[in-house]
Formats: sequence, C-alpha cells, structure tokens
Amino acid sequence: MQLDTGRFLADLDTLRRIGAHRTGVHRPTYSPADMASRRWLVEAMEAVGLEARIDGIGNVYGRHPGPGPHLLAGSHIETQNQAGWLDGVLGVVAALALARAGLPVDVCAYADEEGHFADFPGSRSLVGALTEAEIDAARNRHDGTPLRDALAAAGLAGLPRPQLEPGRHKGAFELHIEQGTQLEKAGLRIGVVTGIVGIRQWRITITGQQDHTGGTTMAERRDAGLTAVRLLAAIDTEFPRLCGPRSVWTAGRIVLEPNAPQIIPGRAEVAFSFRDLSPEVMARMEEGLHRLVQESNRRERCPAMLEPIGHSAPAPCDPAMLEALAGAAETLAPGAWQRMPSGAIHDSQILARVLPVAMLFVPSIGGISHHWAEDTKREDLALGLEVLAEGARRFLAA
Amino acid sequence: MQLDTGRFLADLDTLRRIGAHRTGVHRPTYSPADMASRRWLVEAMEAVGLEARIDGIGNVYGRHPGPGPHLLAGSHIETQNQAGWLDGVLGVVAALALARAGLPVDVCAYADEEGHFADFPGSRSLVGALTEAEIDAARNRHDGTPLRDALAAAGLAGLPRPQLEPGRHKGAFELHIEQGTQLEKAGLRIGVVTGIVGIRQWRITITGQQDHTGGTTMAERRDAGLTAVRLLAAIDTEFPRLCGPRSVWTAGRIVLEPNAPQIIPGRAEVAFSFRDLSPEVMARMEEGLHRLVQESNRRERCPAMLEPIGHSAPAPCDPAMLEALAGAAETLAPGAWQRMPSGAIHDSQILARVLPVAMLFVPSIGGISHHWAEDTKREDLALGLEVLAEGARRFLAA
Repeated sequence: MQLDTGRFLADLDTLRRIGAHRTGVHRPTYSPADMASRRWLVEAMEAVGLEARIDGIGNVYGRHPGPGPHLLAGSHIETQNQAGWLDGVLGVVAALALARAGLPVDVCAYADEEGHFADFPGSRSLVGALTEAEIDAARNRHDGTPLRDALAAAGLAGLPRPQLEPGRHKGAFELHIEQGTQLEKAGLRIGVVTGIVGIRQWRITITGQQDHTGGTTMAERRDAGLTAVRLLAAIDTEFPRLCGPRSVWTAGRIVLEPNAPQIIPGRAEVAFSFRDLSPEVMARMEEGLHRLVQESNRRERCPAMLEPIGHSAPAPCDPAMLEALAGAAETLAPGAWQRMPSGAIHDSQILARVLPVAMLFVPSIGGISHHWAEDTKREDLALGLEVLAEGARRFLAA
Repeated sequence: MQLDTGRFLADLDTLRRIGAHRTGVHRPTYSPADMASRRWLVEAMEAVGLEARIDGIGNVYGRHPGPGPHLLAGSHIETQNQAGWLDGVLGVVAALALARAGLPVDVCAYADEEGHFADFPGSRSLVGALTEAEIDAARNRHDGTPLRDALAAAGLAGLPRPQLEPGRHKGAFELHIEQGTQLEKAGLRIGVVTGIVGIRQWRITITGQQDHTGGTTMAERRDAGLTAVRLLAAIDTEFPRLCGPRSVWTAGRIVLEPNAPQIIPGRAEVAFSFRDLSPEVMARMEEGLHRLVQESNRRERCPAMLEPIGHSAPAPCDPAMLEALAGAAETLAPGAWQRMPSGAIHDSQILARVLPVAMLFVPSIGGISHHWAEDTKREDLALGLEVLAEGARRFLAA
C-alpha cells in the first residue's frame, strides 16, 4: 500500500482540535480531552486493521494481527499544559500511517510521557518497570490529585497492564520534533538520532548563618549564597575539562533564604543537572562534581550537601536501525539531514532497556517547545513520515 | 543632679509593655501602640522639665528650656515588626535620663527610622531634607497604606514640621545596641563608634534566553544565571583588592527566571550592596563594580545592567565627641571597651549633615537584632547610660 501523507496530516489536524488552545493543544494526561484523543486513537487503529485497547495505565496499544517480524512505533498523545500540537502526537500519528501503509507495525501511545503524574509510567509499564505501589503513591504534580483517582475518573481503574511480548518486535521507532534549533540553524530537514542522552539531577544544599549585612564583618560571615556562587563558578571552570563534545550542564534553579538585599543568606539550594550520551563521560562528570563539592567543603565555612534526585541512563540508538534511517534520509533528502543526539528525554530510552530503538527528528520552527506556539512546516512533517517509513522498510528487509 | 539608672531601666520596662510581643515589642510606625508610646514620651519629657511636642511627621521633640550650650540626644521609638525592646528605644530613654540628670539636652524620638514608610523621614524632616511631595508619594512598605492616611489616622495631619534651630546644638549623641557580635565575642561592654558606614545598593539585571536544557548546546546557550554566577565570582575575587579593612559587600538576593531545574534561566536579578566608612574606599569599590560589569558585558552573551537603587553617605563621628566618649569609657569601664564603626545605619548619619554626631554601642546578646528575642544585659544598659552621660558632660565642658 501507498504511504498516505495527506491522511497523516489530516489526522494531525484532527487531534489538534481535541483540547485546542490558541494554535496549540491543552491535553494533560487523563483529562477529558486526553481521554477523547485516546478513544479517537482506538478507533483509528481499528480502522487500519489493528487490534486496539487501552491498558490500566492509559497506554493505547494497537496490535498488528498479521505475521512478523514486527516493529513497534509510537510516542505519546497527551501534551504539556497549554503546549504544542506535535510534541508526541507526531510520532503516534506517523506510526498509525505506517500501519495504514501495510507495514507490520504495532502502534502505541505511551501514557504520560509528559510526566503529569510520574516519570514515563506508560513505557515503564510496557517493559515491566512500573509497580502498583508506585501507582498508589503517584500524584498529579500540578494539583496533587492521586494517580489512582485520575485513573478511576478516566475509566481505567482495574484494567490489565500487559507488558511487551518478548521476542515479538525487531525494534521500536519514534518520530519526534527536535525541540531545539540545530536543524533549523543548519538549514536541514531531518535529524537521525544517534542516541538519547542520560540525565543526572542533583540538589545542592548549602548551610550558612543568616545575619545582618551591616553588623557582620566579612571575616565573621557564613554566606551560603557566596559559597554557592564559588561552587558554581568552580563547576563552570572545571566541567569543560571533563565533558564530552555534546555534554550540557545547568544550574536552572537557585533559591537563597531569606533572599533579602540586606540579610546574609543563611541557606542556598541549587538544582544542578548534566546530560550526555556517553556513560563514561557522565561518570567522569559525576566524579568531578563530587570532587568540587569536597573541595568546597574543605575551603568554605558553609557546608554543601550533594543529593542525587533523578537519574536516567543514556540510550544509544541501534546501529542497524540508525543506518536504515540514515540511508532513507540520504535517498529522500540528500544533503538535508544529519546525525545528532537527542538532548531531550523520550519513551524510546525506556524501551531501549528491552528493544533496539531508533528516533528521527524533524525541525522545530524557532526551536519552540512546550509552548502553544510550537510548530513545524507541513512539508517537513510529510518528509519525516516518508523517511521513517522508508527506514522501517529497509530495517525490516535487512 | 544624680543620674538615675534605676528610673532609666524602669522606663525601658514601661515601654516594653506598650505593644508587647513575646519578650519583644511590635510597634510599627503610627500604629496605635506606636502612638501610645509617643504620648507616653511627651508626658515623660514634660515630667523632666522639657517643652514637648509631636510634629507633623511624628517626631517627638523635648526642648530644654534653660540656657545653652545644648546637646541633642535621642534615637527612634517605633520598632520593626515583632522586634526587640531596645532597638531605638534605648537611645530615647537614655536621652531622657540625661535631661532628668540636669544636662542641657534636647531629647528627640526621630520618626520611622525603621523605614515602615520611608528612609529616615523623621531625622530628614529635622534637617530640612524631607519634601511634602515625598510624603505624598510614600506608602507603607508592608501593606501599601499611603503615609498621608497613616499620619491622618495618627492625628498628625497638618501639624508643623520644625527643623533643628541652627547653632542651637553643640552635637548630637545616640546610644544604641550593637546589632552584631563583635563586643560580645571580644568580651567587651562598650563600643565607641568611630563613624557610621555608607551604603551603596544596586540592582544587577542580566538578560539571557530561556531555553530547554536538553535541546540547547552549551555553545548556543545564553544562560543568565551562569553570567550572574561568573560576575559575582569576579566581584568575590576582585573586591578584596579594592576594599578597606572593614568594608562589607553582599549579594543578599538572587532571582532567576523561570527558576526551574530543566530550563535555562532567561533572566537573573541580583541585589548587591556594599558598605564602608571611607568615601574614598566606596568610590574605589563603585569604580571596580562598574569595571567588572563592563568586563562581563565584553565577555558574556547575556548583557548585565547595573542600576543604583539606594545610597547613603558614610558619616564619621565627631573627633571631640568621640574622644569624650572614649575617655568616659576608659574611666567607667577600663579595658572593657573599643572603638568600632557602625555597620548598621542610624538617624545620626542624617543629623551628621548639619551637626557633629557621636554614637555609643552596648552589646547585643548573641548579636540578635530585628527579632523579638533581641536583648542586652541590664548592667550593660546601665553602663551605657553612665558612659553616655559622662561623655556628654566632658564634651560640654571641653
């Protein structure tokens, strides 16, 4: 069968109207709009001949009824609050288009990749890494609603949560928007993802002594904010010696207490994280961070405490899948594509625990992401689908 | 007449009960409790033979009716919210005790030194540096009440605001708690203040580009928080080369936007200030700050803007008054006193524009200030009064 890019774009437009917000979409996980989009997807899956069901965590899974070897393809269908129309949805609708074109593809919308309730609960459920106890404990990060209550309200309570059938899939593909500006800046239309970075997240807590700025000499002070500044400056100096070519590190959040102009900060809290594709580089950066905190604690009057608060492992893409996509890109968009890592995290990195995975990027206009103004040119969306389909065919044939 | 330290301590205890809060006092400017304390003071002034009145900004002024040369003495009577029983009140009650002992002293409670509505409106009114337009514009910093409304509610609207009579006063004394730990740590009981530091306060605003930490390479980033860290680290390195022996500098407030762990800060705002006794040192530090911001703007991708938001000049104490206090301290507390600057700001630095001034400190237990737990040993309070009286006598006789 022919790949129907017109129908693919029409499906994107249909989903854009469910929970529309300005030019984007507001479909938080398990909200009425989100459940409406999941029910739409069940019908669309059935219409292309898949056996569709929603499971007990909200995954919408369409099983290909024919003989293998099978592929898995998909992404997520819920959105961040007041966010874009393509983030996640693109990969789901593209997977549906592959099935419609006759490829032996199971299609899945992995639940809550956007983390309204938990970290990747949908894909973790599929790989057997989500416990009932975790579901019991999870709450909506914005309004505190227990995940159990949200599942019940969405009609999902008590449904089974089947795992992926071992040996069924040759690999899992995911088409996604880039959420950055590298393709756009380079004038390219396709990114073949070499791997998904891992993240290590830390809380650095520095304890000083709150005092009046006027009455306390520099020699007497224990200024937690100043210790934070010195530590972050040391990281800024030292990390370039430890990092890889595409490592990133960020102190996105700094909170001083009491944070008043004429009071010496008695406490500072810093959220620090770094990302890289290479476990070796990440281990080197982590070792460096521990060493810099130790040095700070030797020199400074304000002790710094380093706590890990989150961790995900880098997931290299499967070489054969990656080369199939690269070959398809060079055929369909000669000179207009590149290999690149994914700096953002995706369900594919969870699936990579049990399956070969690969991802494909299309450009994000202006790099805008997690905002209703997010967009991609329609011809780039269509090209993305074509490269994905051709790559999938080549990988199946290999 | 004899100095009545018992009566002086009893007066402090009486005022402690007006607006009592735990072991401290809550008497914000023009509140019912504050006005009750001002009316108490008028009566107490009249009882020691002064001609007392409250003026149109709330200053309580007791004029000595006898011949000169006269001294001015006082401090403030309102408190910070839920604050201590001695901050300000000590200097007012001590001045009253000098008048009671027969010294030719005008006693004044300068209104709103604690800045509930404005910076030093009481003492500035006395030296002719408070305009009606400024009173029109001022509002309560906590609840936004216009100063005019507060004055009307306190019964002060339309009252005259007389200025100090030129030539009347040989000098102005102020006894105050230290609000620091230097006397306590050194085991001393009296501080003879060499001068009151000046302050320069700045807002540093750094503009970057808010982006997702995953999709944006280090080379592409414009991280306003990182530029702030580098600038503050440069100040930390450079200021020790520019400062004087008792300079202090502080970044008490840092606000990143959006201040989220996985978003590159698009904006950073830093409240930075420094204090010193020497105008030359302050000028050098200011020049250094401008230079460091310029260097930052040459090197960094995120422009930094430096805005002055407050300024007060250092006020050296009068050498003859200072030596009179030092002589008194050595007589009454031999070996138990030191010369020291005041790092906190006081009405005396406003009065210094038109009069010779001097200040005397007594220890603050644990350095606690602007908190209801603030305290000083009663024997130190009494000694402070005795040194003040003896110093005033010596200065009048000189």
